[in-house]
Amino acid sequence: MADGDDDVPLILTWDDANSGLVVEEEERTADPRPQNSLRQSWEMNYQEAAIYLQEGENNDKFFTHPRSANALSAYLFAHNHLFYMMELLTAVLLMLLSLAEAPAVPFLRLDVYVHATLELLALAMVAFELCMKLRWLGFHTFIRHKRTMVKTSVLFLQFVEAIVVLVRQTSHLRVTRALRPIFLVDCRYCGAVRRNLRQIFQSLPPFMDILLLLLFFMVIFAILGFCLFSSNPADPYFNTLENSIVSLFVLLTTANFPDVMMPAYSKNRWSCIFFIVYLSIELYFIMNLLLAVVFDTFNGVEKMKFKSLLLHKRSAIEHAFQLLVSRQRPDGVSLKQFDGLMRFYRPRMAARDRFLTFKALNQSGATMLSLSDFYKFYEVIGLKWKARRSGEYWFDDLPRTAFLIFKGINLLVKSKAFQYAMYLVVAINGIWILVETNMLNDGVSWTRVVPWSYIVFLTIYGIEVLLKLTGLGPMTYFSLGWNLFDFSVTVFAFLGLIALAFDMEPFYFVVVLRPLQLLRLFKIKQRYRNVLDTMFELFPRMASLGLTLIIFYYSFAIVGMEFFAGVVYPNCCNTSTVADAYRQINVTVGNRTVLEEGYYYLNNFNNILSSFVTLFELTVVNNWYITMEGITSQTSHGSRLYFMTFYIVTMVVMTIIVAFILDAFVFRMNYSRKNREPLGDPEEEKGIVFETEVSQTEALQTMDLYRHTLRITNLSSLQSMYAALERCGQPSLVFLGRRSRTKSDLSMKMYEEEIQEWYEEFSRTNLQPDETFQQSLNSPEVSTTDSIN
Amino acid sequence: MADGDDDVPLILTWDDANSGLVVEEEERTADPRPQNSLRQSWEMNYQEAAIYLQEGENNDKFFTHPRSANALSAYLFAHNHLFYMMELLTAVLLMLLSLAEAPAVPFLRLDVYVHATLELLALAMVAFELCMKLRWLGFHTFIRHKRTMVKTSVLFLQFVEAIVVLVRQTSHLRVTRALRPIFLVDCRYCGAVRRNLRQIFQSLPPFMDILLLLLFFMVIFAILGFCLFSSNPADPYFNTLENSIVSLFVLLTTANFPDVMMPAYSKNRWSCIFFIVYLSIELYFIMNLLLAVVFDTFNGVEKMKFKSLLLHKRSAIEHAFQLLVSRQRPDGVSLKQFDGLMRFYRPRMAARDRFLTFKALNQSGATMLSLSDFYKFYEVIGLKWKARRSGEYWFDDLPRTAFLIFKGINLLVKSKAFQYAMYLVVAINGIWILVETNMLNDGVSWTRVVPWSYIVFLTIYGIEVLLKLTGLGPMTYFSLGWNLFDFSVTVFAFLGLIALAFDMEPFYFVVVLRPLQLLRLFKIKQRYRNVLDTMFELFPRMASLGLTLIIFYYSFAIVGMEFFAGVVYPNCCNTSTVADAYRQINVTVGNRTVLEEGYYYLNNFNNILSSFVTLFELTVVNNWYITMEGITSQTSHGSRLYFMTFYIVTMVVMTIIVAFILDAFVFRMNYSRKNREPLGDPEEEKGIVFETEVSQTEALQTMDLYRHTLRITNLSSLQSMYAALERCGQPSLVFLGRRSRTKSDLSMKMYEEEIQEWYEEFSRTNLQPDETFQQSLNSPEVSTTDSIN
Repeated sequence: MADGDDDVPLILTWDDANSGLVVEEEERTADPRPQNSLRQSWEMNYQEAAIYLQEGENNDKFFTHPRSANALSAYLFAHNHLFYMMELLTAVLLMLLSLAEAPAVPFLRLDVYVHATLELLALAMVAFELCMKLRWLGFHTFIRHKRTMVKTSVLFLQFVEAIVVLVRQTSHLRVTRALRPIFLVDCRYCGAVRRNLRQIFQSLPPFMDILLLLLFFMVIFAILGFCLFSSNPADPYFNTLENSIVSLFVLLTTANFPDVMMPAYSKNRWSCIFFIVYLSIELYFIMNLLLAVVFDTFNGVEKMKFKSLLLHKRSAIEHAFQLLVSRQRPDGVSLKQFDGLMRFYRPRMAARDRFLTFKALNQSGATMLSLSDFYKFYEVIGLKWKARRSGEYWFDDLPRTAFLIFKGINLLVKSKAFQYAMYLVVAINGIWILVETNMLNDGVSWTRVVPWSYIVFLTIYGIEVLLKLTGLGPMTYFSLGWNLFDFSVTVFAFLGLIALAFDMEPFYFVVVLRPLQLLRLFKIKQRYRNVLDTMFELFPRMASLGLTLIIFYYSFAIVGMEFFAGVVYPNCCNTSTVADAYRQINVTVGNRTVLEEGYYYLNNFNNILSSFVTLFELTVVNNWYITMEGITSQTSHGSRLYFMTFYIVTMVVMTIIVAFILDAFVFRMNYSRKNREPLGDPEEEKGIVFETEVSQTEALQTMDLYRHTLRITNLSSLQSMYAALERCGQPSLVFLGRRSRTKSDLSMKMYEEEIQEWYEEFSRTNLQPDETFQQSLNSPEVSTTDSIN
Repeated sequence: MADGDDDVPLILTWDDANSGLVVEEEERTADPRPQNSLRQSWEMNYQEAAIYLQEGENNDKFFTHPRSANALSAYLFAHNHLFYMMELLTAVLLMLLSLAEAPAVPFLRLDVYVHATLELLALAMVAFELCMKLRWLGFHTFIRHKRTMVKTSVLFLQFVEAIVVLVRQTSHLRVTRALRPIFLVDCRYCGAVRRNLRQIFQSLPPFMDILLLLLFFMVIFAILGFCLFSSNPADPYFNTLENSIVSLFVLLTTANFPDVMMPAYSKNRWSCIFFIVYLSIELYFIMNLLLAVVFDTFNGVEKMKFKSLLLHKRSAIEHAFQLLVSRQRPDGVSLKQFDGLMRFYRPRMAARDRFLTFKALNQSGATMLSLSDFYKFYEVIGLKWKARRSGEYWFDDLPRTAFLIFKGINLLVKSKAFQYAMYLVVAINGIWILVETNMLNDGVSWTRVVPWSYIVFLTIYGIEVLLKLTGLGPMTYFSLGWNLFDFSVTVFAFLGLIALAFDMEPFYFVVVLRPLQLLRLFKIKQRYRNVLDTMFELFPRMASLGLTLIIFYYSFAIVGMEFFAGVVYPNCCNTSTVADAYRQINVTVGNRTVLEEGYYYLNNFNNILSSFVTLFELTVVNNWYITMEGITSQTSHGSRLYFMTFYIVTMVVMTIIVAFILDAFVFRMNYSRKNREPLGDPEEEKGIVFETEVSQTEALQTMDLYRHTLRITNLSSLQSMYAALERCGQPSLVFLGRRSRTKSDLSMKMYEEEIQEWYEEFSRTNLQPDETFQQSLNSPEVSTTDSIN
């Protein structure tokens, strides 16, 4: 299995580091070279192959691939979790600064020189990161990279402004702060947000087309409405063409309906036809069209994205493969080379797992991995390896009596009767809570008293958790999402009880979370399991969409704060039609004075937190025109543009979210139909499982190879594998590699047939692997540039 | 081509009508029988085959097939447009009665004895229709037919109630009037509405599941909200558990947000988290889930519907085929039989078209139609036949000079330059209208004056229409939807001008429709053409969905009127939180008195028209809780149930509408992708075209056959075909049969491969045609019962 120590790499990388070697190479092709220099050049190749594979995994384009030893060190510096973390923290700090900058959240207000200095520090960090990037990419690639260039110019601008603020000791109108999210979006960890933004921009052209149709009908109806209703002096909504357009825009969001209709309706009952026709066309037809068009684009984009990612990974694998094969054996990667690669690609991986991953890839059983074996690289790389247990239960090795007890518990918790008994308990608990809460209507200070029912039900849940934990073993128990949910709800309930017992008032709300237990009832029906499982699968993507939305919110909040801070207050806006909503007056009712509040002055842009709440209210669109009209009456008519733009932007994002949820669900349903597989059955094994068998002799050989040829000292994982082999007393042991199933796996299965076509097309349009060899042999300096971009 | 007059039908139908013949038949199998009786039995068979084909077309189940001569006469009586019309009118009359019944629309109020008598008359009509149906179906089938049974019992109830009203001379609480739409739904012409209702009911189970999840979260949050906010005396929204639930229900529709949040927000700013989390889960997640689930179900249902329709038609064709073949030639239908069938199936069809349809079916060129030819029956039946024109233009036959002039006009109107010039004119017109309307802001009584721009633009449009009409010929011109649109807008504008000139005030609004011309600009872009074409295709289906919605509205309006008529009025509802919206007081501002109106008292259930408007407002959901709270404060808390039920029902229907639009669009896009066909190109021929060639001898033979064998006297269409053949001077003439493409045609192409599987499965699970023959020969009385149901 060990191959000769004198194998020479087919391609030599980073020419300036070992240029001597290359020249030597060129002269004495098959000659063995000094061991040391050869090992060094192999290490170089391992590292570059690992970088290619990383680029494939992260969907980094190959033209940003480091080309020299200098670039390599910068690349390595900029590609580790410490650096990513720093990047993220800097960006978050910059964004959080707006909490402390005027207009600040009261209890977080900082002096100007404090927050400006903090800002300068953070900007300096960003500048440092950019310098590292410049060093890694080289000047030429750096200025070609659009996102980086935008970031650089924003950075420069912010620097200048921060210095100005520091010099003047006061904040000026800084709308450019709205650009700060760019730093966050550029973070390595925010790749999902970047993808979302790209998707939004891709959906924009068709969206804009339909939006134009929408606005067109709006203008037509505005003209019509102005002509029909402007003669009515009691109608403030259609008295000018501008008001007419604004009214219909707001009506489109259903926000001022029926108010806007009422004056006209009161004068002539038939005028309702105008509004009914308008709403039917705009709201029930064109708005749905918008969704349909975005959904359709989305569908196509999702597939294209999957395709390009797949091909990018394939090309990364091909690049890595060329670097791992030796001149002597140009069509196979040996365990030695694979192990070398893995030491760079996954430094923390144990020697045993590296060996098992190699075995998993090596399906043909030959000593070398062919390219077609190697194509499966990304499928096996995330596997967690475990020896297949001889027995079924965690308590198999316990003494007989204990075994029987645990076996009994195991059978109990697995029985249908136990499950349904628990459902019954949960249902009774639910009804109990409802009745109890209803009885509290007469104002008992209920939070002080621990109701006995709380303790009873909690005891039952606690016993259930304990039984399941002991019956199934912690590993099996926690491997199922639903059990995790049960466990955490029960633990929360306990915490609530403790909070009650020790009278910790701020934690009372934990008690209130009890009804969440009822969610367990939804496990009974298959459809709910499907839906909730899909929900959990969607969660990461939903979170990234939420973050995208927050980024938009942030920019709008900054702009809003710069222009509208302090504009609304109680009893302002008396000239507008919405003055009532801002009124705060003392009214005498009978013999006591009551404060009658309009409350809408609370929806302001006085600091970033208030702005976020206000923007959320605008997103929900009910009564948003009250906020708009209030602010407009205090500033100028131009303010309406801000609110309308915000509405359209959130409309885009929300439509994308709807399209995304639709797409994800329909995909899941189609998938389950196509594969006739009951999705979401909680008892079902849902991960991807690879099996590989290791014999004693193989294990011994491998340990030998690692110890003597590769001179790796940390072999504890391999030794323990060997020990397990000896203990079980059989000549071989089966290891199972598991990972959870991802969307990509589902897509692979869905598009099975098309994928073959893509691969063929891909290899037609690219150079053949053999040609690439030839080329790179002839001109070693281009070996690392990529043949795709 | 003519077959022997002594052919004997393979199957004899309606045994009681010709039982003697059957007995005879059984005895002397191949013997020729008296001509007259034979002809009679053929006619019977033609009629029954035509009925089968009708049943296939209308998707009527075969178990309602008439079984005897008696039933046949009832069937024929109940299946013609006169009867259908009567059915429809009766149902509409019944529904319209609610305009005149108390609480009536003021100017339509009728005395009790008048509308009760009218109702009795209409009900008697319905009873008569039901009697005909009973006669046709027979008692046994009648009581098995669910819809009919429901209709009968509703009829009985209504009868009793109408008589009670007539006797008491006053209307009592007649909630059962809400059932009146059943008579409409059961009409033959309302098949689309029935299908929609079925689809809604099919989507209900998954919908209900998710709705339960939605309500579950609502209750959990209601409990949480009650616990958190009930201690705040200024918060009327969460002071009891019931209010808490209602508030969150209304919040779910986004209707009372941010109002419902404000008291809590004013007390503690962090309470906004509760509302944000609630809305994010309910509105942005579960509501979308609802759409996703309905969309997915919808998708499946649409395909299943298509499949079952297709198979039903196929089985109808098989039934008809058996009735048309003769014992002598059991595997082919001759022209004679086909013509006999068509005389029953399409009585108005000309002899020439019957002949050409036969030719179109007969693709093999044999003298008989085989079963596989006959399967295409429904594809060719709607074709409109026309001889292929020798020349291209309508003015080909005109003298040389006229030809050149028209040819010039033709080239002009087809040129790109002309098109773009017209786009420019339309754009200028649009800008002009905007500017003009904007300048009118200062209140000139603009409607009296005809602006000169109006006349100028109208003249240009008029000239364009004339040029296009003459250049393309009226047939070509009107065959394109866009031209029809241009034409009607221009004609409307002319009518507006006339109205202005003759000072007809009520028609002024026509003038205002001018901006619709701008819609033509959307022709420029391919996407708009796609979208608008799909829109036109969707229109019939949208209309039927609208009608379905109106039926729901009607039922709810009746219930609303029975319980809430006269309940709200100006200055009512002073005890509710929404009293302001109902206030109507005189306020002194400065030195003049202004009427301050809340207007919401106009949203009432005082008559059916007001009810419809109110229900539309509830559908749009903004501020619907004002209407709900107003009425609740005047009646009881139970009234809320009415409004919530209405909300959920409209939610179902609206979700279906969205799913339908989505589905239709995605289907179109997929179709156009699959067939790589540029959809929506206005210049493209989009119908289905069949070609068939007729030679002179063939025409002569056919005329002979018709005249002598079939003894049909009205042969003018055949004669004119022969004349055309002679005139053109060629031995044969090609006829083109055209029809517009339907959704069914698209589906046929989309599911091409699956359809073959369906057919195979269908023929496996059913008896083989040959077996059916044997069966029916052995027991003639079951020949017409169907083998599927």
